[in-house]
Amino acid sequence: MRIVIDGMGGDNAPKSNVEGVVNAIKEYNVDLIITGDKKLLEEEFSKYEFDRSKLEIVNTTEIIENEDKPVKAIRSKKDSSMVVALNLVKEGRADAVISAGNTGALLAGGLFIVGRIKGIDRPCLCPAIPNVKRGMTIIADGGANADCKPKNLVEFAAMSDIYARKVLGHKNPKLALANVGIEEGKGNDLVKKSYEELKKLDLNFIGNIEARDVINAYTDIIVCDGFTGNILLKSAEGVAMSVMGLLKETFMSSTKGKMGALLLKEDLKKLKSFMDYSEYGGAPLLGVNGGVIKAHGSSNSLAIKNAIRQGIRFSEGNVIESIKEFIESYGKENDDNKNDKE
Amino acid sequence: MRIVIDGMGGDNAPKSNVEGVVNAIKEYNVDLIITGDKKLLEEEFSKYEFDRSKLEIVNTTEIIENEDKPVKAIRSKKDSSMVVALNLVKEGRADAVISAGNTGALLAGGLFIVGRIKGIDRPCLCPAIPNVKRGMTIIADGGANADCKPKNLVEFAAMSDIYARKVLGHKNPKLALANVGIEEGKGNDLVKKSYEELKKLDLNFIGNIEARDVINAYTDIIVCDGFTGNILLKSAEGVAMSVMGLLKETFMSSTKGKMGALLLKEDLKKLKSFMDYSEYGGAPLLGVNGGVIKAHGSSNSLAIKNAIRQGIRFSEGNVIESIKEFIESYGKENDDNKNDKE
Repeated sequence: MRIVIDGMGGDNAPKSNVEGVVNAIKEYNVDLIITGDKKLLEEEFSKYEFDRSKLEIVNTTEIIENEDKPVKAIRSKKDSSMVVALNLVKEGRADAVISAGNTGALLAGGLFIVGRIKGIDRPCLCPAIPNVKRGMTIIADGGANADCKPKNLVEFAAMSDIYARKVLGHKNPKLALANVGIEEGKGNDLVKKSYEELKKLDLNFIGNIEARDVINAYTDIIVCDGFTGNILLKSAEGVAMSVMGLLKETFMSSTKGKMGALLLKEDLKKLKSFMDYSEYGGAPLLGVNGGVIKAHGSSNSLAIKNAIRQGIRFSEGNVIESIKEFIESYGKENDDNKNDKE
Repeated sequence: MRIVIDGMGGDNAPKSNVEGVVNAIKEYNVDLIITGDKKLLEEEFSKYEFDRSKLEIVNTTEIIENEDKPVKAIRSKKDSSMVVALNLVKEGRADAVISAGNTGALLAGGLFIVGRIKGIDRPCLCPAIPNVKRGMTIIADGGANADCKPKNLVEFAAMSDIYARKVLGHKNPKLALANVGIEEGKGNDLVKKSYEELKKLDLNFIGNIEARDVINAYTDIIVCDGFTGNILLKSAEGVAMSVMGLLKETFMSSTKGKMGALLLKEDLKKLKSFMDYSEYGGAPLLGVNGGVIKAHGSSNSLAIKNAIRQGIRFSEGNVIESIKEFIESYGKENDDNKNDKE
């Protein structure tokens, strides 16, 4: 097994990427490839002592920036650290790619370079958000597909269920549909139709969940279209960050507040780290023919190392084979139903 | 001008409703009607001294509960405090109704009893959420319509613009579309098409906004379908409440934490009250033929009084007439366009 890391992607690249790679080699004894400016990378790696036989550096001359248009960047920057890394997965020379770079470009590259698994209509991005039980709740789809059909949500559900079992170690993950109310029959047309389909599957589908309760850990997986997933995630993120800001402002506005904040410094740090999305590794793109994991843009070395661990588990868990098995059985089931009707 | 209050709606009814009514009469010298169990209401009112000539009590014998199915409740509980109040608006005996009761029932009642303004396809609910500038951001639609067309979003934009000017006193309210990115061309089909339509209107349309920035007060109004609006609002609400809970837990987990929290007690209270949605009055249902204002279910007397003030401004601001003018000019504009094409 080999994992490839986009060495130039992310706000803290290549420094954090290199440190994350070194720590992953030490901790997991895994074979890694890193793509990027070889001279720059060698310089960074020279700061560390580790087993160099576990590392291959692939030199690349271009970088996809955050401002680049995704599809155009993937097509024109053929020698970018991201595109070269994606090609290594496509060619089977790596099992998974980790990138903290341009999200849209990675999604486009996952689709156009690595390619969809046959039978999957739309791959989905599965970020996770922290919940009050100090666990993580997966959002499927977290933003890859703005317009969806019920068939897509069925795929998101099945794929994220497999991911939760094989990579995150959930025994029997609970799935719920993001909705405006918990009763069956609530919601928009997409959700109502998807509810009917999800009931038929062999999944631990618990029904609807309101956005207010996503953080309360009533479910392990939230199934939704990518537009809704993005709104849900970003709204939560915005409020969490703003509340931390307001808290700081409130504390700093009086002497008593400052004293109190000093006493609470460690506790507040803990709270902040709990709400810091970058501490929780990456989001996999499920439904493409290889491991593609998006690490947070502001990933530090810990986040990179965690994303590499996700890549290892993704590969060891045979996620792609399981998705293929689902497609076969689901397709067969639907064919059986058709035959029944005939 | 007269405003009618659903005396039995809300978690703290009729106590908070009565106190809110008394305080509104004292402060705004307004004529009010309250619907509900007359004996119970008289008992509550007997605790206060105020100008009784400003108050009319209309006796009702039924109550719509939170658990009741909205449309069924409106149709079957004809003598409920909510239905009777809505009928007073329909008959022109009151300009606006305030209710803290069952949201779905009030929306259904607004539609079926008070009725749509001719030319408005879908009325929208416009709650507001606090932003970091200590102001409020309006969400249009905040949950009345799960499936929408671009025409609906255009109506939501125009109506909420009028509401922001006439009731909230904004000089030139900024409007933005809730979206997954700020660039034009981003988002789902509905948002892309609505963007095109909104550009054509005589509104201060500033483009797209990401859910993460809703709280940052970059815009005064967020335009979206009701499904998205609900997800956005509830996700923010859930996180705000959970963070307060986590904060408390964090503080209480150590002696140092407890001491710090004691010092910060007043500051934390301020923060909590900032995030408490119930302190900010009610959400109007725009597009029906009268003022219909949904107060928060857990409204205290201050929230009821604030909602009554909203009702007064709604009536004084001639919101309905302005909406009718918009329909006329917008319809005309569209007719002109048609003629141009012919």
